[in-house]
Amino acid sequence: MSDTQLNPEIAGRFIVFEGGDGAGKSTQASLLADALRAAGHTVLHTREPGGTQIGEKLRSLVLDHGQGTVDARTEALMYAAARAAHVEQVIRPALAAGSMVVCDRYVDSSLAYQGIGRALGEDAVRSINDFATGGLVPDLTVLLDVAPADGRSRRTTGADGAPVAEDRLESEPDEFHSRIRDAFVRFAAREPARYLVLDAASDVPSLTAAIWAAVLGLPDGKEA
Amino acid sequence: MSDTQLNPEIAGRFIVFEGGDGAGKSTQASLLADALRAAGHTVLHTREPGGTQIGEKLRSLVLDHGQGTVDARTEALMYAAARAAHVEQVIRPALAAGSMVVCDRYVDSSLAYQGIGRALGEDAVRSINDFATGGLVPDLTVLLDVAPADGRSRRTTGADGAPVAEDRLESEPDEFHSRIRDAFVRFAAREPARYLVLDAASDVPSLTAAIWAAVLGLPDGKEA
Repeated sequence: MSDTQLNPEIAGRFIVFEGGDGAGKSTQASLLADALRAAGHTVLHTREPGGTQIGEKLRSLVLDHGQGTVDARTEALMYAAARAAHVEQVIRPALAAGSMVVCDRYVDSSLAYQGIGRALGEDAVRSINDFATGGLVPDLTVLLDVAPADGRSRRTTGADGAPVAEDRLESEPDEFHSRIRDAFVRFAAREPARYLVLDAASDVPSLTAAIWAAVLGLPDGKEA
Repeated sequence: MSDTQLNPEIAGRFIVFEGGDGAGKSTQASLLADALRAAGHTVLHTREPGGTQIGEKLRSLVLDHGQGTVDARTEALMYAAARAAHVEQVIRPALAAGSMVVCDRYVDSSLAYQGIGRALGEDAVRSINDFATGGLVPDLTVLLDVAPADGRSRRTTGADGAPVAEDRLESEPDEFHSRIRDAFVRFAAREPARYLVLDAASDVPSLTAAIWAAVLGLPDGKEA
Protein backbone atom coordinates (compact mmCIF):
# COMPACT_ATOMS: atom_id res chain seq x y z
CA MET A 1 0.00 0.00 0.00
CA SER A 2 2.99 2.29 0.42
CA ASP A 3 2.90 3.30 -3.25
CA THR A 4 -0.48 5.00 -2.79
CA GLN A 5 0.36 8.72 -2.71
CA LEU A 6 -1.48 10.45 0.08
CA ASN A 7 -3.11 13.76 -0.69
CA PRO A 8 -0.76 16.46 0.67
CA GLU A 9 -3.86 18.45 1.65
CA ILE A 10 -4.39 16.05 4.52
CA ALA A 11 -1.04 16.76 6.17
CA GLY A 12 -1.20 17.84 9.80
CA ARG A 13 -3.85 15.33 10.85
CA PHE A 14 -4.22 13.67 14.20
CA ILE A 15 -4.98 9.94 14.14
CA VAL A 16 -5.58 8.03 17.36
CA PHE A 17 -5.74 4.29 18.09
CA GLU A 18 -8.01 3.22 20.92
CA GLY A 19 -9.13 -0.14 22.33
CA GLY A 20 -8.53 -2.59 25.14
CA ASP A 21 -5.12 -3.87 26.16
CA GLY A 22 -3.92 -6.52 23.72
CA ALA A 23 -6.08 -5.24 20.83
CA GLY A 24 -3.05 -4.75 18.58
CA LYS A 25 -3.03 -0.93 18.70
CA SER A 26 0.74 -0.54 18.68
CA THR A 27 1.17 -2.98 15.79
CA GLN A 28 -1.36 -1.15 13.63
CA ALA A 29 -0.11 2.29 14.68
CA SER A 30 3.43 1.32 13.62
CA LEU A 31 2.24 -0.05 10.28
CA LEU A 32 0.25 3.14 9.61
CA ALA A 33 3.20 5.34 10.55
CA ASP A 34 5.43 3.36 8.16
CA ALA A 35 2.90 3.65 5.35
CA LEU A 36 2.49 7.39 5.86
CA ARG A 37 6.28 7.85 5.78
CA ALA A 38 6.49 5.78 2.60
CA ALA A 39 3.85 8.08 1.09
CA GLY A 40 6.13 11.07 1.79
CA HIS A 41 4.65 12.40 5.02
CA THR A 42 6.51 13.52 8.10
CA VAL A 43 5.11 11.36 10.88
CA LEU A 44 5.14 11.60 14.63
CA HIS A 45 4.29 8.22 16.15
CA THR A 46 3.70 8.55 19.87
CA ARG A 47 1.80 6.97 22.76
CA GLU A 48 -0.03 7.84 25.98
CA PRO A 49 0.63 8.08 28.80
CA GLY A 50 4.11 9.31 27.98
CA GLY A 51 5.71 11.02 25.01
CA THR A 52 7.52 13.68 27.08
CA GLN A 53 10.14 13.52 29.83
CA ILE A 54 7.63 14.49 32.52
CA GLY A 55 4.96 12.29 30.92
CA GLU A 56 7.19 9.20 31.02
CA LYS A 57 7.84 9.81 34.72
CA LEU A 58 4.09 10.13 35.32
CA ARG A 59 3.51 6.97 33.25
CA SER A 60 5.84 5.06 35.51
CA LEU A 61 4.24 6.48 38.68
CA VAL A 62 0.72 5.62 37.56
CA LEU A 63 1.28 2.22 35.91
CA ASP A 64 4.00 0.48 37.91
CA HIS A 65 3.03 -1.57 40.92
CA GLY A 66 4.43 -0.49 44.31
CA GLN A 67 4.39 3.31 43.90
CA GLY A 68 2.01 3.72 46.84
CA THR A 69 -1.78 3.82 46.82
CA VAL A 70 -3.20 5.49 43.72
CA ASP A 71 -6.91 6.12 44.15
CA ALA A 72 -9.21 6.67 41.16
CA ARG A 73 -9.27 10.50 41.19
CA THR A 74 -5.51 10.70 41.56
CA GLU A 75 -5.06 8.24 38.70
CA ALA A 76 -7.38 10.25 36.43
CA LEU A 77 -5.54 13.50 37.20
CA MET A 78 -2.12 11.94 36.61
CA TYR A 79 -3.21 10.67 33.18
CA ALA A 80 -4.59 14.12 32.41
CA ALA A 81 -1.32 15.76 33.51
CA ALA A 82 0.74 13.49 31.26
CA ARG A 83 -1.68 14.23 28.41
CA ALA A 84 -1.44 18.00 28.91
CA ALA A 85 2.35 17.82 28.57
CA HIS A 86 2.05 15.57 25.52
CA VAL A 87 -0.41 17.85 23.71
CA GLU A 88 1.43 21.07 24.56
CA GLN A 89 5.00 19.95 24.01
CA VAL A 90 4.68 17.30 21.29
CA ILE A 91 1.35 16.91 19.48
CA ARG A 92 0.37 20.54 18.80
CA PRO A 93 3.86 21.55 17.58
CA ALA A 94 3.96 18.51 15.24
CA LEU A 95 0.49 19.21 13.80
CA ALA A 96 1.37 22.88 13.35
CA ALA A 97 4.48 21.83 11.40
CA GLY A 98 2.34 19.69 9.06
CA SER A 99 3.29 16.27 10.44
CA MET A 100 0.84 13.43 10.59
CA VAL A 101 0.48 12.46 14.24
CA VAL A 102 -0.28 8.81 15.04
CA CYS A 103 -1.00 8.28 18.72
CA ASP A 104 -1.59 5.11 20.73
CA ARG A 105 -4.43 6.04 23.19
CA TYR A 106 -5.87 9.49 23.95
CA VAL A 107 -8.86 11.02 25.80
CA ASP A 108 -11.26 8.12 25.09
CA SER A 109 -8.99 5.81 27.09
CA SER A 110 -9.37 8.06 30.13
CA LEU A 111 -13.14 8.34 29.66
CA ALA A 112 -13.34 4.54 29.42
CA TYR A 113 -10.83 3.45 32.09
CA GLN A 114 -11.30 6.20 34.68
CA GLY A 115 -14.79 7.54 33.83
CA ILE A 116 -16.48 4.16 33.34
CA GLY A 117 -14.04 1.52 34.63
CA ARG A 118 -13.29 3.40 37.86
CA ALA A 119 -16.85 4.85 37.96
CA LEU A 120 -15.73 8.49 38.29
CA GLY A 121 -18.29 9.49 35.67
CA GLU A 122 -17.67 10.23 32.00
CA ASP A 123 -18.56 13.95 32.29
CA ALA A 124 -16.20 14.62 35.21
CA VAL A 125 -13.30 12.91 33.46
CA ARG A 126 -14.13 14.68 30.19
CA SER A 127 -13.98 18.00 32.01
CA ILE A 128 -10.44 17.51 33.36
CA ASN A 129 -9.36 16.24 29.94
CA ASP A 130 -10.82 19.25 28.13
CA PHE A 131 -8.62 21.29 30.46
CA ALA A 132 -5.62 19.06 29.68
CA THR A 133 -5.95 19.12 25.88
CA GLY A 134 -7.27 22.64 25.44
CA GLY A 135 -9.95 20.99 23.26
CA LEU A 136 -7.74 19.15 20.74
CA VAL A 137 -9.84 16.36 19.14
CA PRO A 138 -8.52 13.64 16.76
CA ASP A 139 -9.37 13.81 13.06
CA LEU A 140 -9.78 10.04 13.07
CA THR A 141 -10.01 7.53 15.91
CA VAL A 142 -9.45 3.88 15.03
CA LEU A 143 -11.12 1.65 17.62
CA LEU A 144 -9.74 -1.89 17.67
CA ASP A 145 -12.53 -3.74 19.40
CA VAL A 146 -11.31 -6.74 21.39
CA ALA A 147 -13.08 -9.24 23.66
CA PRO A 148 -11.55 -9.01 27.19
CA ALA A 149 -10.44 -12.67 27.30
CA ASP A 150 -8.75 -12.35 23.86
CA GLY A 151 -6.98 -9.16 24.93
CA ARG A 152 -5.63 -10.78 28.09
CA SER A 153 -4.40 -13.81 26.20
CA ARG A 154 -2.64 -11.59 23.59
CA ARG A 155 -1.03 -9.18 26.04
CA THR A 156 0.29 -11.86 28.42
CA THR A 157 2.04 -13.84 25.69
CA GLY A 158 5.23 -12.33 24.29
CA ALA A 159 6.41 -12.65 20.68
CA ASP A 160 8.61 -15.54 21.80
CA GLY A 161 5.68 -17.29 23.52
CA ALA A 162 7.03 -16.46 27.00
CA PRO A 163 4.62 -14.99 29.60
CA VAL A 164 4.48 -11.17 29.91
CA ALA A 165 3.50 -9.52 33.24
CA GLU A 166 0.45 -7.22 33.32
CA ASP A 167 0.66 -3.63 34.65
CA ARG A 168 -1.61 -2.15 37.35
CA LEU A 169 -4.56 -1.50 35.02
CA GLU A 170 -4.17 -4.57 32.81
CA SER A 171 -4.35 -6.83 35.85
CA GLU A 172 -7.94 -5.74 36.64
CA PRO A 173 -10.53 -8.55 36.19
CA ASP A 174 -12.35 -9.31 32.89
CA GLU A 175 -15.54 -7.62 34.18
CA PHE A 176 -13.61 -4.31 34.39
CA HIS A 177 -12.28 -4.74 30.85
CA SER A 178 -15.75 -5.63 29.63
CA ARG A 179 -17.18 -2.29 30.84
CA ILE A 180 -14.25 -0.51 29.14
CA ARG A 181 -15.00 -2.26 25.87
CA ASP A 182 -18.67 -1.27 25.96
CA ALA A 183 -17.69 2.33 26.69
CA PHE A 184 -15.36 2.54 23.67
CA VAL A 185 -18.07 1.16 21.38
CA ARG A 186 -20.57 3.69 22.74
CA PHE A 187 -18.19 6.65 22.17
CA ALA A 188 -17.69 5.53 18.56
CA ALA A 189 -21.42 5.17 17.97
CA ARG A 190 -22.01 8.78 19.01
CA GLU A 191 -19.63 10.22 16.39
CA PRO A 192 -19.50 7.70 13.53
CA ALA A 193 -17.89 10.19 11.10
CA ARG A 194 -14.81 10.48 13.31
CA TYR A 195 -14.43 6.79 14.22
CA LEU A 196 -13.44 3.61 12.43
CA VAL A 197 -14.45 0.55 14.46
CA LEU A 198 -12.69 -2.70 13.55
CA ASP A 199 -12.80 -6.21 15.00
CA ALA A 200 -9.34 -6.71 16.51
CA ALA A 201 -9.63 -10.47 15.85
CA SER A 202 -9.36 -9.84 12.07
CA ASP A 203 -6.04 -10.65 10.39
CA VAL A 204 -3.38 -7.94 10.43
CA PRO A 205 -3.35 -7.19 6.65
CA SER A 206 -7.15 -6.74 6.54
CA LEU A 207 -7.02 -4.33 9.48
CA THR A 208 -4.13 -2.42 7.87
CA ALA A 209 -6.02 -2.07 4.58
CA ALA A 210 -9.20 -0.83 6.29
CA ILE A 211 -7.24 1.76 8.28
CA TRP A 212 -5.40 2.97 5.18
CA ALA A 213 -8.68 3.39 3.31
CA ALA A 214 -10.06 5.51 6.17
CA VAL A 215 -6.96 7.71 6.22
CA LEU A 216 -7.17 8.21 2.43
CA GLY A 217 -10.78 9.21 2.95
CA LEU A 218 -10.06 11.98 5.48
CA PRO A 219 -11.72 15.20 4.29
CA ASP A 220 -9.41 17.81 2.72
CA GLY A 221 -8.29 21.15 3.93
CA LYS A 222 -9.15 21.06 7.61
CA GLU A 223 -6.95 23.26 9.75
CA ALA A 224 -5.09 21.23 12.36
CA MET B 1 -2.12 29.40 75.54
CA SER B 2 -1.91 25.61 75.77
CA ASP B 3 -3.94 25.56 78.99
CA THR B 4 -7.02 26.88 77.19
CA GLN B 5 -9.25 23.81 76.83
CA LEU B 6 -10.67 23.60 73.36
CA ASN B 7 -14.35 22.74 73.03
CA PRO B 8 -14.51 19.01 72.13
CA GLU B 9 -17.46 19.88 69.87
CA ILE B 10 -15.04 21.38 67.39
CA ALA B 11 -13.07 18.15 66.87
CA GLY B 12 -12.74 17.02 63.25
CA ARG B 13 -12.11 20.48 61.81
CA PHE B 14 -9.97 21.30 58.81
CA ILE B 15 -7.68 24.33 59.20
CA VAL B 16 -5.56 25.52 56.28
CA PHE B 17 -2.65 27.97 56.15
CA GLU B 18 -2.24 29.92 52.91
CA GLY B 19 0.03 32.73 51.77
CA GLY B 20 3.13 33.45 49.69
CA ASP B 21 6.42 31.60 50.09
CA GLY B 22 8.27 32.85 53.17
CA ALA B 23 5.09 34.03 54.94
CA GLY B 24 5.77 31.83 57.97
CA LYS B 25 3.01 29.30 57.28
CA SER B 26 4.91 26.25 58.48
CA THR B 27 6.02 27.99 61.71
CA GLN B 28 2.46 28.99 62.59
CA ALA B 29 0.99 25.66 61.48
CA SER B 30 3.44 23.83 63.80
CA LEU B 31 2.64 26.13 66.72
CA LEU B 32 -1.10 25.62 66.20
CA ALA B 33 -0.68 21.83 65.96
CA ASP B 34 1.30 21.87 69.23
CA ALA B 35 -1.34 23.99 70.97
CA LEU B 36 -4.16 21.75 69.77
CA ARG B 37 -2.33 18.67 71.04
CA ALA B 38 -1.73 20.37 74.39
CA ALA B 39 -5.47 21.04 74.55
CA GLY B 40 -6.10 17.31 74.20
CA HIS B 41 -6.88 17.00 70.50
CA THR B 42 -5.61 14.41 68.10
CA VAL B 43 -3.91 16.44 65.37
CA LEU B 44 -2.83 15.68 61.84
CA HIS B 45 -0.31 18.28 60.67
CA THR B 46 0.32 17.93 56.95
CA ARG B 47 1.32 19.92 53.87
CA GLU B 48 0.67 20.21 50.14
CA PRO B 49 1.81 19.12 47.70
CA GLY B 50 2.70 15.87 49.43
CA GLY B 51 1.37 14.02 52.45
CA THR B 52 1.16 10.62 50.73
CA GLN B 53 3.72 8.36 49.05
CA ILE B 54 2.41 9.17 45.57
CA GLY B 55 1.96 12.84 46.52
CA GLU B 56 5.58 13.19 47.64
CA LYS B 57 6.73 11.74 44.31
CA LEU B 58 4.50 14.21 42.46
CA ARG B 59 5.81 17.03 44.68
CA SER B 60 9.34 16.19 43.65
CA LEU B 61 8.40 15.96 39.94
CA VAL B 62 6.61 19.30 39.96
CA LEU B 63 8.90 21.37 42.21
CA ASP B 64 12.45 20.19 41.52
CA HIS B 65 14.38 21.78 38.71
CA GLY B 66 15.53 19.51 35.87
CA GLN B 67 12.55 17.12 35.64
CA GLY B 68 11.84 18.18 32.06
CA THR B 69 9.55 20.93 30.80
CA VAL B 70 6.44 21.34 32.96
CA ASP B 71 3.93 23.62 31.22
CA ALA B 72 1.19 25.40 33.16
CA ARG B 73 -1.67 22.94 32.52
CA THR B 74 0.51 19.97 33.37
CA GLU B 75 1.64 21.68 36.57
CA ALA B 76 -1.95 22.43 37.62
CA LEU B 77 -3.04 18.83 36.99
CA MET B 78 -0.06 17.42 38.92
CA TYR B 79 -0.89 19.57 41.94
CA ALA B 80 -4.51 18.46 41.67
CA ALA B 81 -3.44 14.80 41.47
CA ALA B 82 -1.30 15.12 44.60
CA ARG B 83 -4.21 16.86 46.35
CA ALA B 84 -6.69 14.12 45.37
CA ALA B 85 -4.45 11.50 46.97
CA HIS B 86 -3.97 13.67 50.07
CA VAL B 87 -7.70 14.26 50.58
CA GLU B 88 -8.74 10.67 49.89
CA GLN B 89 -5.98 8.84 51.78
CA VAL B 90 -5.11 11.25 54.61
CA ILE B 91 -7.38 14.24 55.26
CA ARG B 92 -10.86 12.68 55.00
CA PRO B 93 -9.97 9.64 57.15
CA ALA B 94 -8.41 11.92 59.82
CA LEU B 95 -11.45 14.25 59.91
CA ALA B 96 -13.79 11.26 60.06
CA ALA B 97 -11.83 9.95 63.07
CA GLY B 98 -12.28 13.30 64.85
CA SER B 99 -8.73 14.64 64.40
CA MET B 100 -8.02 18.30 63.91
CA VAL B 101 -6.32 18.62 60.51
CA VAL B 102 -3.80 21.46 60.09
CA CYS B 103 -2.61 21.76 56.50
CA ASP B 104 0.05 23.96 54.93
CA ARG B 105 -1.49 25.06 51.56
CA TYR B 106 -4.64 23.76 49.84
CA VAL B 107 -6.90 24.67 46.90
CA ASP B 108 -6.39 28.45 47.20
CA SER B 109 -2.70 27.99 46.45
CA SER B 110 -3.58 26.32 43.14
CA LEU B 111 -6.15 29.00 42.29
CA ALA B 112 -3.54 31.67 43.03
CA TYR B 113 -0.37 30.12 41.55
CA GLN B 114 -1.84 28.28 38.56
CA GLY B 115 -5.14 30.10 37.98
CA ILE B 116 -3.81 33.64 38.40
CA GLY B 117 0.01 33.36 38.41
CA ARG B 118 0.12 31.06 35.36
CA ALA B 119 -2.98 32.74 33.87
CA LEU B 120 -4.92 29.48 33.37
CA GLY B 121 -8.04 31.12 34.80
CA GLU B 122 -9.42 30.75 38.30
CA ASP B 123 -12.60 28.94 37.19
CA ALA B 124 -10.75 26.30 35.14
CA VAL B 125 -8.37 25.55 38.00
CA ARG B 126 -11.25 25.49 40.51
CA SER B 127 -13.02 22.94 38.34
CA ILE B 128 -10.14 20.43 38.33
CA ASN B 129 -9.68 20.99 42.08
CA ASP B 130 -13.36 20.37 42.80
CA PHE B 131 -12.81 17.05 41.05
CA ALA B 132 -9.68 16.41 43.12
CA THR B 133 -11.17 17.21 46.54
CA GLY B 134 -14.69 15.95 45.96
CA GLY B 135 -15.75 19.35 47.35
CA LEU B 136 -13.94 19.30 50.72
CA VAL B 137 -13.62 22.94 51.94
CA PRO B 138 -11.62 24.11 55.02
CA ASP B 139 -13.49 25.19 58.16
CA LEU B 140 -10.94 27.98 58.60
CA THR B 141 -8.27 29.35 56.27
CA VAL B 142 -5.52 31.47 57.83
CA LEU B 143 -4.00 33.76 55.20
CA LEU B 144 -0.56 35.05 56.17
CA ASP B 145 -0.26 38.05 53.89
CA VAL B 146 3.35 38.79 52.91
CA ALA B 147 4.90 41.40 50.60
CA PRO B 148 6.81 39.58 47.80
CA ALA B 149 10.20 41.13 48.65
CA ASP B 150 9.80 40.20 52.34
CA GLY B 151 8.82 36.65 51.45
CA ARG B 152 11.86 36.21 49.22
CA SER B 153 14.19 37.57 51.85
CA ARG B 154 12.73 35.24 54.50
CA ARG B 155 12.70 32.06 52.40
CA THR B 156 16.26 32.49 51.04
CA THR B 157 17.85 32.91 54.47
CA GLY B 158 18.10 29.78 56.60
CA ALA B 159 17.78 29.65 60.38
CA ASP B 160 21.60 29.73 60.55
CA GLY B 161 21.77 32.79 58.26
CA ALA B 162 23.11 30.71 55.33
CA PRO B 163 21.49 31.14 51.89
CA VAL B 164 18.68 28.70 50.92
CA ALA B 165 18.00 27.83 47.24
CA GLU B 166 14.53 28.56 45.79
CA ASP B 167 12.45 25.87 44.08
CA ARG B 168 10.93 26.15 40.60
CA LEU B 169 7.93 28.26 41.66
CA GLU B 170 9.68 30.33 44.34
CA SER B 171 12.27 31.47 41.80
CA GLU B 172 9.62 33.30 39.70
CA PRO B 173 10.03 37.13 39.70
CA ASP B 174 8.44 39.49 42.27
CA GLU B 175 5.74 40.54 39.76
CA PHE B 176 4.50 36.91 39.68
CA HIS B 177 4.42 36.74 43.49
CA SER B 178 2.63 40.09 43.61
CA ARG B 179 -0.26 38.77 41.50
CA ILE B 180 -0.43 35.70 43.77
CA ARG B 181 -0.66 37.92 46.84
CA ASP B 182 -3.51 39.97 45.38
CA ALA B 183 -5.35 36.78 44.47
CA PHE B 184 -5.14 35.37 48.02
CA VAL B 185 -6.46 38.63 49.47
CA ARG B 186 -9.36 38.60 46.97
CA PHE B 187 -10.33 35.00 47.84
CA ALA B 188 -10.41 35.92 51.54
CA ALA B 189 -12.53 39.03 50.91
CA ARG B 190 -15.20 36.93 49.19
CA GLU B 191 -15.73 34.62 52.19
CA PRO B 192 -14.75 36.63 55.28
CA ALA B 193 -16.45 34.19 57.69
CA ARG B 194 -14.14 31.36 56.62
CA TYR B 195 -10.88 33.36 56.47
CA LEU B 196 -8.54 34.99 58.97
CA VAL B 197 -6.19 37.44 57.22
CA LEU B 198 -3.05 38.40 59.14
CA ASP B 199 -0.04 40.55 58.31
CA ALA B 200 2.86 38.09 58.11
CA ALA B 201 5.24 40.87 59.21
CA SER B 202 3.67 40.85 62.71
CA ASP B 203 5.67 39.18 65.49
CA VAL B 204 5.24 35.44 65.93
CA PRO B 205 3.45 35.50 69.34
CA SER B 206 0.85 38.03 68.12
CA LEU B 207 0.10 35.90 65.08
CA THR B 208 -0.13 32.76 67.21
CA ALA B 209 -2.59 34.45 69.59
CA ALA B 210 -4.80 35.71 66.76
CA ILE B 211 -4.91 32.26 65.15
CA TRP B 212 -5.75 30.59 68.46
CA ALA B 213 -8.61 33.02 69.05
CA ALA B 214 -10.03 32.23 65.61
CA VAL B 215 -9.82 28.48 66.26
CA LEU B 216 -11.59 28.90 69.63
CA GLY B 217 -14.26 30.84 67.77
CA LEU B 218 -15.06 28.08 65.27
CA PRO B 219 -18.80 27.41 65.35
CA ASP B 220 -19.88 24.21 67.16
CA GLY B 221 -21.31 21.00 65.85
CA LYS B 222 -20.49 21.13 62.17
CA GLU B 223 -20.14 17.73 60.56
CA ALA B 224 -16.70 17.24 59.01
